[in-house]
Amino acid sequence: MKLLEDMIREKGIVKPGNVLKVDSFLNHQMDINLFNEMGKEFKRLFGDRPINKILTIEASGIGIACVAAQYFNVPVVFAKKSESINIDGDVYSTQITSFTHKREYQVIVSKKYLSEEDHVLIIDDFLANGCALQGLIDIVQSAGATVEGIGIAIEKGFQEGGSLIREMNVNLHSLAIVDAMNDETGEITFREDK
Amino acid sequence: MKLLEDMIREKGIVKPGNVLKVDSFLNHQMDINLFNEMGKEFKRLFGDRPINKILTIEASGIGIACVAAQYFNVPVVFAKKSESINIDGDVYSTQITSFTHKREYQVIVSKKYLSEEDHVLIIDDFLANGCALQGLIDIVQSAGATVEGIGIAIEKGFQEGGSLIREMNVNLHSLAIVDAMNDETGEITFREDK
Repeated sequence: MKLLEDMIREKGIVKPGNVLKVDSFLNHQMDINLFNEMGKEFKRLFGDRPINKILTIEASGIGIACVAAQYFNVPVVFAKKSESINIDGDVYSTQITSFTHKREYQVIVSKKYLSEEDHVLIIDDFLANGCALQGLIDIVQSAGATVEGIGIAIEKGFQEGGSLIREMNVNLHSLAIVDAMNDETGEITFREDK
Repeated sequence: MKLLEDMIREKGIVKPGNVLKVDSFLNHQMDINLFNEMGKEFKRLFGDRPINKILTIEASGIGIACVAAQYFNVPVVFAKKSESINIDGDVYSTQITSFTHKREYQVIVSKKYLSEEDHVLIIDDFLANGCALQGLIDIVQSAGATVEGIGIAIEKGFQEGGSLIREMNVNLHSLAIVDAMNDETGEITFREDK
């Protein structure tokens, strides 16, 4: 998606250790006009699927998912990262390893909000090693629901997550795939649209 | 706001210990049509202020803030609840006590995304004891920015947060104020609109 790639080139910052900082427009400060364009693109990509629910994970997936949901006219459910006393005990849960935060955590979704009747579009901001995404797929499958598609804003194409998820034969689209980045020059190479 | 009150009456669940569960439409599963109506109401309430940024706090404020931001045509910044290696060290921070999660945590906003030129609308899903909100106000004031208003979805009017914040002479509006609730009958009493 050209608008997103342009914004990553213009405002993204490449840091050592394969870190791409996009917190000026995607995951700390959020550009809602961009999110609307991303929502329209997700609708173009997944609009032929019988989606009745969007699933994302806190925190930075929520804004993208909520704006996109307007184009599908469906509710959003966000997976929570640690057990809260305000969540009923009756939850689907899975373990996720975060390399960013260097810890393991539990991801939960209340059983009330996912069932075998649900046709789910999973949305998240980043796909790198794919752990969070595999956790969300686990949760949808635990519920007996159907993953109709996966929409990602930015995929780090040089990490393994994209390949692993695509091997599962799911309908995955990333709006921008970074194939290489250089923390000395700041140069970012995107995978070309097929 | 009648639509929100009706939804709380219809779908909210009152639990012992002054817990009001609204996770079927507000803070786990999210009703985006409701969020749009809330966004319009925030625009009606705060549209005369020179707002150029919305500030919220992860996780459940983000969806409401992002949908509302469309009516103000401004970006959203969300305060993060724990230090991540992906956030620059250069942050505003404040300590918050969460009664829900029974712990203290640090709330941070990058200095890049709040400055003395900002006129901020703070949005959050709940106001109870007011700790999270006071933390957000602290952060805006640390940045030398102006709090133009505070928009809350649900205020627990029987807890002290609303009074404490109103004494600070800020422009606070809660779309629904619960003055009493009964976990045996499920009855919920709302404060009447003035």
